[in-house]
Amino acid sequence: MTPEEKIKSLNINLDSVTKPIGSYIPCLIVDNFAYISGQGPKMEDGSFATGVVGKDIDVNTAQDHAKRCGLAILSALRSEIGSLDKVEQVVKLNGFVCCHSEFYDQPKVINGCSDLMLEIFGSKGVHARAAVGVISLPANISVEIEAIFKIK
Amino acid sequence: MTPEEKIKSLNINLDSVTKPIGSYIPCLIVDNFAYISGQGPKMEDGSFATGVVGKDIDVNTAQDHAKRCGLAILSALRSEIGSLDKVEQVVKLNGFVCCHSEFYDQPKVINGCSDLMLEIFGSKGVHARAAVGVISLPANISVEIEAIFKIK
Amino acid sequence: MTPEEKIKSLNINLDSVTKPIGSYIPCLIVDNFAYISGQGPKMEDGSFATGVVGKDIDVNTAQDHAKRCGLAILSALRSEIGSLDKVEQVVKLNGFVCCHSEFYDQPKVINGCSDLMLEIFGSKGVHARAAVGVISLPANISVEIEAIFKIK
Repeated sequence: MTPEEKIKSLNINLDSVTKPIGSYIPCLIVDNFAYISGQGPKMEDGSFATGVVGKDIDVNTAQDHAKRCGLAILSALRSEIGSLDKVEQVVKLNGFVCCHSEFYDQPKVINGCSDLMLEIFGSKGVHARAAVGVISLPANISVEIEAIFKIK
Repeated sequence: MTPEEKIKSLNINLDSVTKPIGSYIPCLIVDNFAYISGQGPKMEDGSFATGVVGKDIDVNTAQDHAKRCGLAILSALRSEIGSLDKVEQVVKLNGFVCCHSEFYDQPKVINGCSDLMLEIFGSKGVHARAAVGVISLPANISVEIEAIFKIK
Repeated sequence: MTPEEKIKSLNINLDSVTKPIGSYIPCLIVDNFAYISGQGPKMEDGSFATGVVGKDIDVNTAQDHAKRCGLAILSALRSEIGSLDKVEQVVKLNGFVCCHSEFYDQPKVINGCSDLMLEIFGSKGVHARAAVGVISLPANISVEIEAIFKIK
């Protein structure tokens, strides 16, 4: 299956691109690379998941939030390049987890996004990554993830 | 107006490049890209604005600090490439705001830098961005911003 | 001396690549660039140095931890490209220091990694950098550093 076929088979809707909450754009293409701005976990009703992971939110829920960041990343990318089948490689994810000082499971959380990339893009979804804990995020979101893709 | 004309019309002085406080350089050019090291908010007297946003510093002041980070970014860039008219595109900004755990207005703060890029570079100033809150920054600065530019 | 000769003369062992603690790979090559995932401070016995810098760990020890992150970065890179003599330029380091809100010496800490790059690669080791303080890191590590290299 191509990435677009995979998206369809999973009944994923990528039509709604998150409006930036600042003076920037969701996705910038330069040469053959797409830079995706930091995305938050958008819920079905259009609101964002908020709270502190490890306190208000458990790891499994936070992992789902990271997956939602990944879906927002894919929405931003597809709205710019037209089709995810044009992705040559997922290059880099940077994951920021809003948490307290004794939460150490950022990698498990960000796997929610990484695993989505592997599911959609297969071997082209294998990427480099950093994951860190931060004291707070815009609009009190629980997780923020930014990404770089190589485009055909 | 070109970016250099714009800088002149706004009476902006970019001559003073911030000396790195570590074993790195302010700006590295690789191929057609300029990587700018994390810059802090330098004040007129050469000192850096310090403190915790949302506690010691309000959002408007922090936005001015972010603009000063942007000016430091432009100083570092221009000292390396000679003229801002050589900028083909502002690609990416990463903004780190020193704040407490209940401060959620990082995007408003980093807009101080993003808006400067739009003002100076127009459509070439449109960029991707991430903004997060962090527990502390070097030398107690309030905001740190790094950037990537594409150069002609 | 070439980088590989330097590594040998310093008796540095880069054979052990840190296994990712998530759904990603340590090093991804795209075009002529190597993206290295966030690396932690691996000790001689294979465990990771943990704790809060400025509280559990002093600056000098944290600097050594940053150097160990740098060694992990070089291990990940060499295992992918075969020889460090293929490095054309160290491009970018991003350093995340787990610390409390009144710790401001992140640059001194990350110098442990920057100085290693300069020692091994000489003028090709000169790089751009950002260093910030974060509230917590994966597996409670003290320092996490990610990197970008240009490869011949």
